[in-house]
Amino acid sequence: MMGIRFSLYPMRDDFAPLILDAVRDLDQLGVEVEVDDVSTCLLGEEPNLWEAVRVAFGRAAAPGDHVVLAATWSAGCPGEPEGDVCVPRAYDGPVGGDASWSTEAFVLPEAIAVQFALYPLGTGGYMDAIYAEIDRAKQRGVRVVGRHFCTHLYGDGQEVFDVLRAAFSAARETAAHVVMTATISANSPSHVG
Amino acid sequence: MMGIRFSLYPMRDDFAPLILDAVRDLDQLGVEVEVDDVSTCLLGEEPNLWEAVRVAFGRAAAPGDHVVLAATWSAGCPGEPEGDVCVPRAYDGPVGGDASWSTEAFVLPEAIAVQFALYPLGTGGYMDAIYAEIDRAKQRGVRVVGRHFCTHLYGDGQEVFDVLRAAFSAARETAAHVVMTATISANSPSHVG
Repeated sequence: MMGIRFSLYPMRDDFAPLILDAVRDLDQLGVEVEVDDVSTCLLGEEPNLWEAVRVAFGRAAAPGDHVVLAATWSAGCPGEPEGDVCVPRAYDGPVGGDASWSTEAFVLPEAIAVQFALYPLGTGGYMDAIYAEIDRAKQRGVRVVGRHFCTHLYGDGQEVFDVLRAAFSAARETAAHVVMTATISANSPSHVG
Repeated sequence: MMGIRFSLYPMRDDFAPLILDAVRDLDQLGVEVEVDDVSTCLLGEEPNLWEAVRVAFGRAAAPGDHVVLAATWSAGCPGEPEGDVCVPRAYDGPVGGDASWSTEAFVLPEAIAVQFALYPLGTGGYMDAIYAEIDRAKQRGVRVVGRHFCTHLYGDGQEVFDVLRAAFSAARETAAHVVMTATISANSPSHVG
């Protein structure tokens, strides 16, 4: 069982149609979609989930107004209602998956800011897993700033999404149940410090 | 070390002044405030943190437009830069703390929706701690809906905030390091299902 629950926040009077357009037909990308009044939940294979969330964020950011996507990724949660879900679903697609992604998945802002946190659960060594992913991020082409309770990334949209994907993937090798949260911001009027 | 990192999302063209007004002078409530381009981080004692976040959300929701506060509470994080921070700070204020809260801390919407999740870290028994808090929520006067990766609460603003506070407090007795996330929504045009 692997999935992502996310909310889109376009800071505009006409936010509702922008959100609906951003999540339109995500089920065509091979993920199950559940919508409620607070968020959208996608369940599926790892590459498809990343494709879908990139498409949704890219669409919402395209008009150029300030928008945030806040998300929780989860893999291996033993508390889900579908029985034995501790193992990520099998995936038979291309290695890395992005070779088959739609063009839309690559339309991301040139500059985004992300605050993310990893929570490998049920294991005493979780801090080492977190530090390893912070170090890995520093070796990519993004700026990394340590903050209380999270790590702040600044960089090109595609590079930052790649960092997030690599972090969540590697952390899953350290624990059966891993959660990652990320607050992904584009077009903010705030000074990028 | 205990704190909360939160972002406010007023879905309005004029979101910026609304956010700035909502977080104005929170340091007068006895918490340290750090602001960056994605979120606001408050550090302090447990009652003061809850007072401050209630004040910020109440202010942002008061105009009646759709607004979301997305937050991460953290206690006992061993990875913070301030040395030995595994123990919540001592607090000498009134028991429960809310006896001394400002009037603003009680100005909350009559109906809010919250998706929250608890992450007791470094312990194998974390799922039991989570289930206990879901059960506790069901015994309060709020509606509780189970969802993938989170629990969805609907109810009066004050009652729901009390549920969140009780959950985070009780979960801290099960692990030295506990994180709680919550997405708190008011005035949404979406159907409350």
